[in-house]
Formats: sequence, C-alpha cells, structure tokens
Amino acid sequence: MRTSELVFKSLRETPQDAEAASHKLLLRGNYIRRLTSGVYSFLPLGYRLLRNVERIIEEELDRAGAAELLLPALQPVEIWRATGRIDKMADVLFGVEGKSGSFVLGPTHEEAVIEAMSPDIESYRDLPKLVYQLQTKFRDEPRARFGLMRTREFIMADGYSFDVDRDAMRSSYQKFYDAYLAIFARLGLQAEPVEADAGSIGGDVNHEFMVASTIGEDHFACCASCGYQANIEAARAGDREPVKVDLEVEPKTYSTPNAPGIESAIAALQALGVDVEIGGMLKSMLLIDEADRPVLALLPGDRTLNVPHGMRLADDTQMAGFAKGYIGPQGQSPRVQVLADPLVRTRPSWASGSNEHGSHVVGLRLGVDFSVDRFENLVVVEDGDPCPRCGASLSLVRSVEVGHTFQLGLTYSAVLPHARFHSVSGEELPYWMGCYGIGVTRVPAVVAQQYGSPDGDAVVWPLEVAPFVVSIVGVGATKDNEVTAISERLHASISEAGLSVIMEDRNVSVGVAMRDLELIGSPIFCIVGARSLAKGVVEVRERIHDRTIEVALEGVVETVVALGRELASERR
Amino acid sequence: MRTSELVFKSLRETPQDAEAASHKLLLRGNYIRRLTSGVYSFLPLGYRLLRNVERIIEEELDRAGAAELLLPALQPVEIWRATGRIDKMADVLFGVEGKSGSFVLGPTHEEAVIEAMSPDIESYRDLPKLVYQLQTKFRDEPRARFGLMRTREFIMADGYSFDVDRDAMRSSYQKFYDAYLAIFARLGLQAEPVEADAGSIGGDVNHEFMVASTIGEDHFACCASCGYQANIEAARAGDREPVKVDLEVEPKTYSTPNAPGIESAIAALQALGVDVEIGGMLKSMLLIDEADRPVLALLPGDRTLNVPHGMRLADDTQMAGFAKGYIGPQGQSPRVQVLADPLVRTRPSWASGSNEHGSHVVGLRLGVDFSVDRFENLVVVEDGDPCPRCGASLSLVRSVEVGHTFQLGLTYSAVLPHARFHSVSGEELPYWMGCYGIGVTRVPAVVAQQYGSPDGDAVVWPLEVAPFVVSIVGVGATKDNEVTAISERLHASISEAGLSVIMEDRNVSVGVAMRDLELIGSPIFCIVGARSLAKGVVEVRERIHDRTIEVALEGVVETVVALGRELASERR
Repeated sequence: MRTSELVFKSLRETPQDAEAASHKLLLRGNYIRRLTSGVYSFLPLGYRLLRNVERIIEEELDRAGAAELLLPALQPVEIWRATGRIDKMADVLFGVEGKSGSFVLGPTHEEAVIEAMSPDIESYRDLPKLVYQLQTKFRDEPRARFGLMRTREFIMADGYSFDVDRDAMRSSYQKFYDAYLAIFARLGLQAEPVEADAGSIGGDVNHEFMVASTIGEDHFACCASCGYQANIEAARAGDREPVKVDLEVEPKTYSTPNAPGIESAIAALQALGVDVEIGGMLKSMLLIDEADRPVLALLPGDRTLNVPHGMRLADDTQMAGFAKGYIGPQGQSPRVQVLADPLVRTRPSWASGSNEHGSHVVGLRLGVDFSVDRFENLVVVEDGDPCPRCGASLSLVRSVEVGHTFQLGLTYSAVLPHARFHSVSGEELPYWMGCYGIGVTRVPAVVAQQYGSPDGDAVVWPLEVAPFVVSIVGVGATKDNEVTAISERLHASISEAGLSVIMEDRNVSVGVAMRDLELIGSPIFCIVGARSLAKGVVEVRERIHDRTIEVALEGVVETVVALGRELASERR
Repeated sequence: MRTSELVFKSLRETPQDAEAASHKLLLRGNYIRRLTSGVYSFLPLGYRLLRNVERIIEEELDRAGAAELLLPALQPVEIWRATGRIDKMADVLFGVEGKSGSFVLGPTHEEAVIEAMSPDIESYRDLPKLVYQLQTKFRDEPRARFGLMRTREFIMADGYSFDVDRDAMRSSYQKFYDAYLAIFARLGLQAEPVEADAGSIGGDVNHEFMVASTIGEDHFACCASCGYQANIEAARAGDREPVKVDLEVEPKTYSTPNAPGIESAIAALQALGVDVEIGGMLKSMLLIDEADRPVLALLPGDRTLNVPHGMRLADDTQMAGFAKGYIGPQGQSPRVQVLADPLVRTRPSWASGSNEHGSHVVGLRLGVDFSVDRFENLVVVEDGDPCPRCGASLSLVRSVEVGHTFQLGLTYSAVLPHARFHSVSGEELPYWMGCYGIGVTRVPAVVAQQYGSPDGDAVVWPLEVAPFVVSIVGVGATKDNEVTAISERLHASISEAGLSVIMEDRNVSVGVAMRDLELIGSPIFCIVGARSLAKGVVEVRERIHDRTIEVALEGVVETVVALGRELASERR
C-alpha cells in the first residue's frame, strides 16, 4: 500500500481530549476518531491493527480447540430476566424498545450463548464444547476514559465452555487460560493472571489478566517475595499480630457538635486538646445484607471499605435509628451484626462516634467496651500490607485488565431449566460452564502505551500487531528518478515475499514523511537515498532493537524477510 | 476439522417456523439458530460460511482500491437530526436512551462516515477516497421474514466514496459497481444490476443488484428483447398508442348508495345492468404534495398506484370537501392539480365516482368531461406492459436484492457544513459522494436457496463459499481399522494442501453420516470404503457436476486439489 492510498492525514496539533500518550498517538496517527463520548471509529490504519489483534486471538483459540461463532447484540429482555441479570447489571445495560418487544444490547453473552448452544447439548457425548466469538458489546458507561480504554461500544473476544463436571470444566478453563497467555505474549504484552473478584459474572475461581500500565484504572497487589498476585478487589492482607487492649484507660465522651464523619471528628477532638489521629479513629459503616438485615462494619479510619459480597451500603431510610455520622460499635442492639477487619485488633483502644449526634468517645476497647461478632477482611489492601501467603510486604501495581477468565460452575445452568444434559447414567444434570473474555478494542491502546513514545508521536509496534511490518521512504524521491524506481521495486518484492508494506509516495518533505511513518510504527524501515544508492546500498533500520544496517541493493528483500522472521520468533 | 469437534447436531425434524427451503437447510444443518424474531446466531458452521462471504467481499473491494474501516453502531442522535433522517427513517430506527445522551443504532452509515472522514478531506489532493466496512446494522423491521432474508440485526458491507465532482464520483461508482459484479460471481450468484428507487438514501442514479429467487420479496421488470431491467418501484412502462375519445356517448349518472371504492362500485353498477369492468373504472386518488397542496392521481381501476416522490396519500382530514370513495376528476376546483398515468389515454371513456356520495358516472371522456394537468407514470408495472425502451413486452421476475449502489451526489454534503474540500482554485465546495451496500448475512440464504435441494435437506455450496471444500467419510470405519487410518491420513494431507476439510469421526451409521455431510454441503466428497481400499482406490465425488471417480490412493490429494482448482476457475 501507499501512504496516498491509505486514508491518512496525521494531526499536527495535540488532540485536546487526549490524556494518555497512547491516546494521543492513536488520534495523531489517524488510527481512530471519536464519534461521541466513549464511541470511536477505527480508520483504515487502526482497523489493520485491530484485525491483526483479532487474527492472533483467532489463531490461538482455534488451536485450543474452540470453534468461532457469532451471537447477536440485540437480545430479548426475557433471557436477561430469567438469570436475574436485568437487575444485577442494570447500571450498564442499554435497553432498546422495538416494535416487536423489548431488547437489551448485550454487554456480555452468557444468556445468549446458552440459548444458542443448549439444543446441541443433549448428552455427555456432546461435551465438552468450547466456543468463542469476536463481537461488539455495548455498556452504558457513566465515565468514558482514555480513548479506547473504557468505551460504550467495544469488541470483545468472549469464549464459553460447557462440561459434564467440575474437573472437566477446569480442564477447559486451563485451555483458555493457556491460550490467553500465548495471545498476550504474541501481542507483546506481559499479562499477569491474578486472582480477582467475580462481580456480576459469577462463579468461584476466576483470573484477571493484568498488564502493568500507566493508563491502568485497576491495581493489583503483588508480593515480590512469594509471587502472590491478586486484583485489588480480591486481594486480602495477611494477619497482623493483635495487641493487648489498654485496661487502664476508660472511655471518655467529648462534645463535638457538627462534626460527623472521620475528618471533622478529628478536627473537633484535636481542637479540644485530645491527641487522636486518623488511624486511631474507628470507622463504623452500616451495611445491609442479602436478607435486608443491618450489619455494622468496623475498620480503621484511614482505610477504605471493600464492601463484602451480597452486602450494600445502607441508605438514609435504613439509617433511621442510627446517629448518622456518629455511629460507634458500643451498645448496639443484638439484631445488628458487628463485623470487623482484623486491623481492629491492632490498637489498644479507639476513638469513635458515641451513637449520639454531637459527641464522640475516646478510649473504646475491643472486648471491653464493644464486641465483634465476626472478623473478616474488610479493607482494600494498600502498599506495605502483609502478604496473605508469606507475610512479606505487598506492593500495588497500576494496571490494565486485558482479559478475564471465570469458572462459572453451575451459576447459570442451575437457574435455567434448558441448560442440561443427560449423564452416562441417564440423569438430567446442569452443565458446568466457564466464560472467558479479552477486551479486543482495548489492546491497541495498551500496546501503544507500552511501545509508543511518552509524548505520543512515535511508536514501534510489535511485529505481529504492526499495521505494516515494513515502511519504505525515499530520500530525494522525484517522480521518475532512481530513488522512486528502486522504492517501487522494493515495495513490490517485499509485498510478494508476504510482508505487509507501506511506501511513502506523497509529495512531502523527508521530515514530514519520517514523522508520519513513525506514527504508522513499522518495526522495519527501508530508507532509499540517492547517496546510499550511489554506493549500491539501502539503509535498513530495525526499530525494535534500534539497529541500522546498510544492505546491498540485491540483498534487501532477503534481509528484511530474515529480520521479520527473527522478530517473530522472539515473541513465541 | 472433525464432525465431533464442530458443534454440530443436525435436526431430525423440519423446523416449524421455516417457510423456505434455504431456511430449513440452514436450521437443519445448524448453520444458524433463532434467538428471537428476526435475530439469529451464527453457529460455527454458519460462521465459516459467513466468513467466506466476507473474505470474498474484502478481497474484491481491496482490489478496487477501497480501504476497510469500522464505524460504530451507536450514533449520537444529533448527526441524524442534521441530515433530517431521524424523521425520514423513523419507521425503522432503533433509539437508545443512555446516561450520556440519546443514540440511534445505525441502520446505515452515511452520517457516521462523514463524521469519520471529513477531518481527512481538506483539499482536492485528498480525493478520491474509497472506504468500506463489514459491520452490524440494526433495523426495527415490522415483519421479519424467511430467516436471514429480513432481520432486525444483520451484517452489511457498506462502502462510501468521496470525490471532487460528478465525473469523478461516477468513476468511483464504477469501481464499486464492477467489484460488486465480481463478488456476486464468486458467490455463485447471477446478480442483475437494475435501475432502482433511491428511497430514504437519496441521490439520482442508483442500481439494485437483484438475484432471481423464489424467496424474493422484490420483483424486477425485464425486457427480453432489449435488456432493459428495473426494480418494480423504478420501472416505467413504455407509452401506448392513445385512443380517440368516444364523442357519441354522454356521461350518465347512476345511483350507487353504499358503494364506495372500485370493487363495490362495479358490483353496484353491474347490478343496475351497466356493462363495466375493473379496467374501465377510473381510480382517482387524492395525494398531498410537498407544499401540502392536493393532487388528484388518475389511473385505471385494475392498476396499483406508485406514489410519486415527495407525495403522500391524503389522510381523512385532508379529504374534507371530497366525497371519499366517490371521487372523480370532473369539475375539480383549479386548486386541485390533476395527474394522470398515460394509460388514462387508452380508453374512449371511463366510469368514475360522481363526487357525490352514493352515485357514479359512466361515460366520462378525457378532454371533454374532465381534463388533466400533467401525464406521468403513476402505475406499478405489470407482466406484459410495454418496455419503455423498445416497446416489447416486459416480464416481472421475483428476486432478492443482494446489493445496492447509489450516486448520492451532493445529497448529504450540501446540508452538512463540514462535508467540504478546497478545490484547485481554493474554493470551498461540498464533496460528491457515492454509497454502496451488500446484505452480507442475507447471502447465505440466497445461495442456499439456489444451490440447496427443494426440500432443504441437502446443498452443494459453490467452491469459495463452502464451509469445507472437502468432506471425508469412511464406510465401515472402526476405531483402529484401515478405513480410519486412511481417512485420517487424507484429512491431514488435504488440509496441508490448503483446502478446508472436515472428516466424519462420530460413531454414527453411514446413512446418518451422509445425510449430515449433505447438509454441510462440501462440493467434494472422499468416500473411503473397505471394498474400494481392497482395490487400492478411494471414491472421489465432485458434486457440482455430479461426477464420481475412483482414484488410486496415492493420487487422491492431487486429484482433490486439481478438482478444487478447476471449480475455482469456473467462477472467475
């Protein structure tokens, strides 16, 4: 292809709405263009990149024995009611009212794949089945961010497995898991599988595939000592040594009018001369469990609550009878269950609300002045927390989720009467499922962030992802001089050798051409110059390892093909 | 691939909701599965078929110099307001209300492609540009029909061209037009480009690519004598010789109470002994033009009105002052414009409503008792009408629209201020557009209808479309006999030779295997039988021309490859 044919005009100015370098690069290079907030078009250069990503995913999933299919985006609301996800995912579902009924635009396809596959699954002989699709999803994201990172319309590679029992499910899970590692390696991404939270998808075991990246919206905790890794929502800190409570202090009440909440309480107490800091304040948060019963969660004032599964924060109505902003654990009615993070055992006494508006208590002691029904991990882990496996220090890594795999088990098939098969003994049983997803349209952004320059005006794409493996530019090319003739010849023969190649043929300066080609980001450049040609050579630049070599004219194609092969083998 | 790996279980019974043979075949063969009315999943076998169709389209459009891109389905309602199509296409648009605004699910992408491309089109040097995409469209169809033929979610290959002037637009149009002919030929379809109506897309010149098919919802008119072809909405009959009016008759009024409309008027008149037939009744239909003025359209009672562009049928309010069911052309006020089809000149006199409730007039003469402001073609053409070019007899062919190409001209760019470029002389001008579409998901149904059996239980797919070019079946195969070993060896070596191949490996009878393989529809079968093997041969069946040959074992791969090449060359 030629730059004049490619719909390509790079942007001279920094796009205003681009926060991240990868986003700037993708806009400047005309890979993508914003249609509206969180909705992007893939222009021809970006579409080539995207198709390369898709091809790698297809090849590895086919190799894993999964069959590709295509499920609809437009899904009848009834199948979402049957699984209850019409409510569970209500915050991101786009609804569509049509002449013939109500639809949901699929943000994920567990319901739809069960409808599509169930008639083909009659007996144990029909299992296992592994399928996947590359398909467009829709999510009504409240905040669209970082260009392709969080969008309202995106392509996902979503896979599903169907098995007779837990062991078989685990074996199918392992096939996708291994394929994912192979895919991310070929994409040039070092993806770490970390333990994660199942969220609205469900199931017991699941892994997020995280890539450390400055455009990450997630964090994962990792332990350099033992290798423990978990998503911040799933990570737990290890236990710490409990301290003895201070039997010598006595709780003392202070008048703190208009000081609800931790921050204002500290200010009010300090103004009264009380020596208290945020880590010594007890945070008491009222939750509601699945049976609509009140639960009080206790944690240190400087930590963030990780709301336990099946619970939610109480709303104002549910807070009736509690002194909002002044709640403490002491003297609670037995109908309120008290949960505490193990960190609550690590101080001799605590400051807390008094359960009366306008006053706080200092010197509350666990087991003396208040009691706890159950200890469990309630806080979001932080840098320096102890590892739950080895006790060494955890650190948090900013990262992007590029894939997620779930052992769903019977989560869906237990509630859907047609998600069944006949076992060897003729029994009708629910099948065991797994589901697997890669955020396809997110990959170009993550790869660009890793392989692009910090200012977003150049990139060297990994070989298999590059829209064009080779770029050819002539220095001093005119309409019919030797530089142009040689460039054309190389263009034809490199293309014939099976490598994707783009040639600069616009009437622009070498400076403009090079700047644009650095946005296109081929790993190999061929620079054809009059001066080199006089010596019978062409300059070949291998940009991944930054090597420049002069190659005799007749050896250029061979050299380029060999470099391509070398770069390809590095990734496998 | 093996039949056990392919998610494949053919249906033993005729699917209830399948009307057409193609639809039965696609359901029985597990190509597709209905999720809800007008919404289908493509199962793995159907997805392979679909990808083959897409690959052919991509190859031919790439060859034509068009660049592939991908535009979003989710489109802000504002861009649809700017072109006015939010109203023009209101009957099929799916609207989506999101947190961040109102969207339309694109049923076509003129608005979106202009948003995507305009920043890249600054000057005449940036033109022409040809782009296309394979993308999912949504239409709120009131009636979904014939499986894949008319669906609410479907894939379209939609292309767009951008040019400096009309001539350049025509040249881009020709590139797509030629590519379309090449695509349909490779798909095994004889597509006829016919003149058509522009509908809600717009523009002057356009062609529909029609394939004669029993599942067609359209008809096109064609002239065997001169080759004239036009869609039924665009076709016009040629002129007929006008007859002289009968000056000897006089109009006579008959009392016809409770007989509004043509059918009841004839019955009432015949009951009175008047000799009148439907072709001699004048149909007078009240229309409203773009300036909201009344227009009376006259045509013979046995013909169907083709409502002229920009006009609509009057509603009851607009009929006030007219004797509904008894309207005639005589004595109309000058503010009512009278249009007549040329057929109105072909009878010496007409029967008509009297403009009074409850009576009709017989013997009304054109130019004597009523006058016409303008003659123009107003009737839908019928079998036997004269060809507008040569006067020979037209015939109507039931057909499916598989593609549509439009010379849009300035339809869109004239109303969108950013759809401009700077000309050679520096003037800012609107660019000239074309748009082009192929109904991708409809193609499998059309091809299946043409190449499948009338009862929908067997098919021979054209070579390039076939999900598997070769099917291998062993007769008397057991787990470890020679039949199985040879089948496996052929499977490996045919696959290595670059042909897609599926092998029957399920534990089923030869009868079941053959029945299922006929649903998979490979053009080439290899039948490995113990008896043939004893003679050292394998039976190779070429199903397109129905040839069966016995081939020596060591020559099977070569023969199959040669047959594949021969079948491929027939289509180009």
